[in-house]
Amino acid sequence: GFRCLEISRWVVCGLIGFLTGLIACFIDIAVEELAGIKYRVVKENIEKFTEVGGLSISLILWAVLNSAIVMMGAILVAFFEPIAAGSGIPQIKCYLNGVKIPRVVRLKTLVVKVCGVICSVVGGLAVGKEGPMIHSGAVVAAGVSQGRSTSLKRDFKIFEYFRRDTEKRDFVSAGAAAGVSAAFGAPVGGVLFSLEEGASFWNQMLTWRIFFASMISTFTLNFFLSIYYNKPGDLSNPGLINFGRFESDSVAYNLYEIPLFIAMGAFGGLLGALFNKLNYWLTIFRIRYVHRPCLQVMEAMLVAAVTAAVSFTMIYFSNDCQPLGSENKEKYPLQLFCADGEYNSMATIFFNTPEISVRSLFHTQAGTYNPLTLGLFTITYFFLACWTYGLAVSAGVFIPALLIGAAWGRLFGILLASITPNGSIWADPGKYALIGAAAQLGGVVRMTLSLTVIMVEATGNVTYGLPIMLVLMTAKIVGDYFVEGLYDIHIKLQSVPFLHWDAPATSHWLTAREVMSAPVTCLNRIEKVGTIVDVLSNTSTNHNGFPVVMQGADSDEPSKLCGLILRSQLIVLLKHKVFVELARSRLTQRKLQLKDFRDAYPRFPPIQSIHVSQDERECMMDLTEFMNATPYTVPLETSLPRVFKLFRALGLRHLVVADDVNRVVGLVTRKDLARYHLGSHGLEELQLAQT
Amino acid sequence: GFRCLEISRWVVCGLIGFLTGLIACFIDIAVEELAGIKYRVVKENIEKFTEVGGLSISLILWAVLNSAIVMMGAILVAFFEPIAAGSGIPQIKCYLNGVKIPRVVRLKTLVVKVCGVICSVVGGLAVGKEGPMIHSGAVVAAGVSQGRSTSLKRDFKIFEYFRRDTEKRDFVSAGAAAGVSAAFGAPVGGVLFSLEEGASFWNQMLTWRIFFASMISTFTLNFFLSIYYNKPGDLSNPGLINFGRFESDSVAYNLYEIPLFIAMGAFGGLLGALFNKLNYWLTIFRIRYVHRPCLQVMEAMLVAAVTAAVSFTMIYFSNDCQPLGSENKEKYPLQLFCADGEYNSMATIFFNTPEISVRSLFHTQAGTYNPLTLGLFTITYFFLACWTYGLAVSAGVFIPALLIGAAWGRLFGILLASITPNGSIWADPGKYALIGAAAQLGGVVRMTLSLTVIMVEATGNVTYGLPIMLVLMTAKIVGDYFVEGLYDIHIKLQSVPFLHWDAPATSHWLTAREVMSAPVTCLNRIEKVGTIVDVLSNTSTNHNGFPVVMQGADSDEPSKLCGLILRSQLIVLLKHKVFVELARSRLTQRKLQLKDFRDAYPRFPPIQSIHVSQDERECMMDLTEFMNATPYTVPLETSLPRVFKLFRALGLRHLVVADDVNRVVGLVTRKDLARYHLGSHGLEELQLAQT
Repeated sequence: GFRCLEISRWVVCGLIGFLTGLIACFIDIAVEELAGIKYRVVKENIEKFTEVGGLSISLILWAVLNSAIVMMGAILVAFFEPIAAGSGIPQIKCYLNGVKIPRVVRLKTLVVKVCGVICSVVGGLAVGKEGPMIHSGAVVAAGVSQGRSTSLKRDFKIFEYFRRDTEKRDFVSAGAAAGVSAAFGAPVGGVLFSLEEGASFWNQMLTWRIFFASMISTFTLNFFLSIYYNKPGDLSNPGLINFGRFESDSVAYNLYEIPLFIAMGAFGGLLGALFNKLNYWLTIFRIRYVHRPCLQVMEAMLVAAVTAAVSFTMIYFSNDCQPLGSENKEKYPLQLFCADGEYNSMATIFFNTPEISVRSLFHTQAGTYNPLTLGLFTITYFFLACWTYGLAVSAGVFIPALLIGAAWGRLFGILLASITPNGSIWADPGKYALIGAAAQLGGVVRMTLSLTVIMVEATGNVTYGLPIMLVLMTAKIVGDYFVEGLYDIHIKLQSVPFLHWDAPATSHWLTAREVMSAPVTCLNRIEKVGTIVDVLSNTSTNHNGFPVVMQGADSDEPSKLCGLILRSQLIVLLKHKVFVELARSRLTQRKLQLKDFRDAYPRFPPIQSIHVSQDERECMMDLTEFMNATPYTVPLETSLPRVFKLFRALGLRHLVVADDVNRVVGLVTRKDLARYHLGSHGLEELQLAQT
Repeated sequence: GFRCLEISRWVVCGLIGFLTGLIACFIDIAVEELAGIKYRVVKENIEKFTEVGGLSISLILWAVLNSAIVMMGAILVAFFEPIAAGSGIPQIKCYLNGVKIPRVVRLKTLVVKVCGVICSVVGGLAVGKEGPMIHSGAVVAAGVSQGRSTSLKRDFKIFEYFRRDTEKRDFVSAGAAAGVSAAFGAPVGGVLFSLEEGASFWNQMLTWRIFFASMISTFTLNFFLSIYYNKPGDLSNPGLINFGRFESDSVAYNLYEIPLFIAMGAFGGLLGALFNKLNYWLTIFRIRYVHRPCLQVMEAMLVAAVTAAVSFTMIYFSNDCQPLGSENKEKYPLQLFCADGEYNSMATIFFNTPEISVRSLFHTQAGTYNPLTLGLFTITYFFLACWTYGLAVSAGVFIPALLIGAAWGRLFGILLASITPNGSIWADPGKYALIGAAAQLGGVVRMTLSLTVIMVEATGNVTYGLPIMLVLMTAKIVGDYFVEGLYDIHIKLQSVPFLHWDAPATSHWLTAREVMSAPVTCLNRIEKVGTIVDVLSNTSTNHNGFPVVMQGADSDEPSKLCGLILRSQLIVLLKHKVFVELARSRLTQRKLQLKDFRDAYPRFPPIQSIHVSQDERECMMDLTEFMNATPYTVPLETSLPRVFKLFRALGLRHLVVADDVNRVVGLVTRKDLARYHLGSHGLEELQLAQT
């Protein structure tokens, strides 16, 4: 039995990896093809008008094309599935943390996400297609592991055992890891991302399965892409973004460069904090004024048009011409006003997909870009990316951040070589582009371990591991001094009960007594149906778990804790009318099984939809065999960090606080813990949304 | 305060990484130099006698040299520190699991380990120097983090906060990770190794610190080795063993090769199981008959001599001559009976250090080794390595296993190419050598996640990730069918209370009632000193934790649980004579502080060494302010898997079982849980050693 279960877990993980890889492959090919068509149209048009004059017509064509494509994506997101907006990483972080956000892992969300991200990337916005892969992988996982689709009303009658919160969350971590793996060609980074965001209790076999899903995902993507590119079997492009190989035959970097790297990390932290702060204000503004779907679509179109216009202006006024070498691999070189046999360097950065631009900044030899181009590009792209994140389109912030960082990093490298007497020792500006990219990305998202590993895996070279790590640490420390990470800002704006790693550092003087909710609504072991219905219908106490108590033999003895039952269980019991009185009359009827609970998962009906007649209200329900008979309890004096650790390590949602004679005196939920956070004035209490 | 603590944690981790890297560097250089001298002497001797005849003199010289060197190592280990024998990985696994093995992390152990491993590698045994690095890193970590050395009687008065079990264990994980990282150039693999073996609760910052230590360690090793090899700044040799770069410009492997890889995995699992079984019998034999130190030294010398003799015979009778190309990088080519301009291929494998042989098997082009050489080598080395593991010398099993696997893997590749009509599609036997190495190592040690990542990092190429993972999985599944992993066998032979990941699969019907030890020795909150001394002196109940109870106000009311106190705490209290009666008389005297507990850590005196007079026995001790006032408790009906999860997730050592009025009815310790294991006849109970 349990061997079979284990095998099916592996099968599910393999499927998750395979499907996630396929989706990544689909997005990649769709973007490649559509962007190719768009670029060819625009390029021909520009070339036609460059000599005869009237380039403003090209500009209009470009802007209109972009706006139209982005509009499609924005309409999908704003009208059909608003939760598919953005990269989805904050939502997945919440999900893995244990916060239930409605509609996050539905099939519809996936479809909107995939179409949306293709539109936004093809529409030329300052976005990447990598972030959304994580969300896509998670949705795939949630779907596959349940063996049915509620949206399509199909139940394949498989994997029924996995229809419960803990199992589903495990698979969703695997899906998220597979998504990271496909996006960056970083299977280990994916595993660490999932662990960082989701794990509390380290589970060996689960981790290995997650790793398996990641491996399969990057392998699938690579395999199909190799066929698409007509090089079947060439498995050297493991991800959507590929940093190219940093060769380390010669000296990679010197010890004396490390302080420079750290300084770049600090700069990245500053820029990242600025990015986040601006985006925070923008998001507040959007929440207040741009909440109607049609306004959101219009904003997205405006951003697309402005992006096109700004790019065009930058290209138009730039005169950074570079020779069109034979070894040149730029896909869409644009001659514009350059002499024959040359191309416009500014146009290269703006005109290519961001992924290709990043790689070009990392690897082209010194002299390909002039400093002015890089400087102007950094500034404009910074503001464009900042404006773009948070629009009602599906898109990620990883690639824009990498691109901004690579640009200023390369600029830094060039300046360093030009101001020092012996410039040749800083020969390779690509190295500084890499460090700059890491610094900027670290400054924006503030991820630690997983980001380091992702960067190391994407560069395919462990030599740069130490500098990248130091840079990410510095960027995080500097950035955290000013403002939180971008994802955390967006999570906080949603006021969900998000549990961080540890209890706030100064909270050890708080005890369960202060933290818990009291008084608690308790149910008797044998309870009247009417009471249960009333308790569940009471909207002011929308708890999801209720302690079950037992009256002592003596009537003056206090009633003792004997179990804990969940709202969802009560609803299923009510729906199936498992009443004591009816038990005798339907002896032939089958007993309520685990299967009934699984079938109802995850969309339990609301209490209002369950009809209970006046007669039935007088019946009794025996909760004994359905409740959790050994719930975790703590005494009143338990400190907050200790309660917190129990929640994190055991993945609890309810913790009963009992006194020394086992009477229920309170209940601690996630919300009670998530309230406390360390602000600038010591311990603060947050207002959390009613969910 | 807590910021300062956090910084010092990072500093300690940096130091651990640095020192571990230095030790690895020292071992590497020492082995390189000494082995060089030895090889030169033997080689000259062989060359001298090859033509004139009388090679038996060379054999004797070789055997005597090897035995003498191994003798030094064996004497160190057998007479001075037996715990330094072997790779130390089982011991570190136990330590990280929470089992306290005496003397594992002492300075003396480190010194013996380092000298011992140099002797055994230079002595030509079939061993590697990688495994012991993990132990070395762990000892470094335990030493540095405590800011003092008990052996040297030096206390630097720093890092005093870290003198407690949990903190120390965290640092030891970092040390083990740094060791793996230095050994294989695999910082991420190191982190995962530590997590796999030690982590229960996933701690974000701790993991990042471990990663930092790993990075620093591999960087340090690489940096100093680059200076040693006169290529300062060349950071492309990150570990002691370096698999060389597997280029993936062309097709790395094809889909249809994957079944072959899996078959190789199964074969590796079989061979690994055979290796483990033979070694198990050998270990049993050694425990029975070879337990005196001088016998152990003699056995080690015998193995060294036999290894030399076997190698010599194999080389002597082999006629696998290969041309000595200009691109040939063999360090010690041996001409022997080959024509001029040729060298003996068998001699190359036996004569070089195992690390170089592994690399050579992976990378030299097809045709370098002939099948007979590889076949004979596999068989002899298999038995030699099996005999060697478990000797009283410090050495690891990683490299021998890799070498055996690489040999039969390459053989497999060659045969495949020769029996198929279109042999060229299996062009690269090095690829099969890699897969074979992974299969053999996986079959012996049965590590999963961390080994995959270590192999991927050591090959420097994520492309081979999926095949390596599949191979390791297959090897583990096949091997586990026959016998446990080598480390697990050796752990089991020590009968320590080792907790695995999960409770045995069929144990859900067991409850705390069956598992717990009862009755429990409880102490009163205010207890007579005499009683405490008697309880601690009672050797039949050598518990380390005692529940503290409080008599109810009513005398017929049962006494309730109010805390838990540790043996070590009681001993410190007794030593400082913290008695109620004395409190008044020494108002001026300072109160007992946390510092007193830290100073006594980790070698608390035994109870016998504390003198308590007859008068003092009548005094009372108030335990209220020293005990843990909110110990974790569970009710009697809690199932074993649930208790198990609490232990693993929270790192508990004692769990009080209480009834519904909070009376102590039992105590669960690690030993109570570790007893149960899933044998071939269902759930079995083990006999565990009294520790």
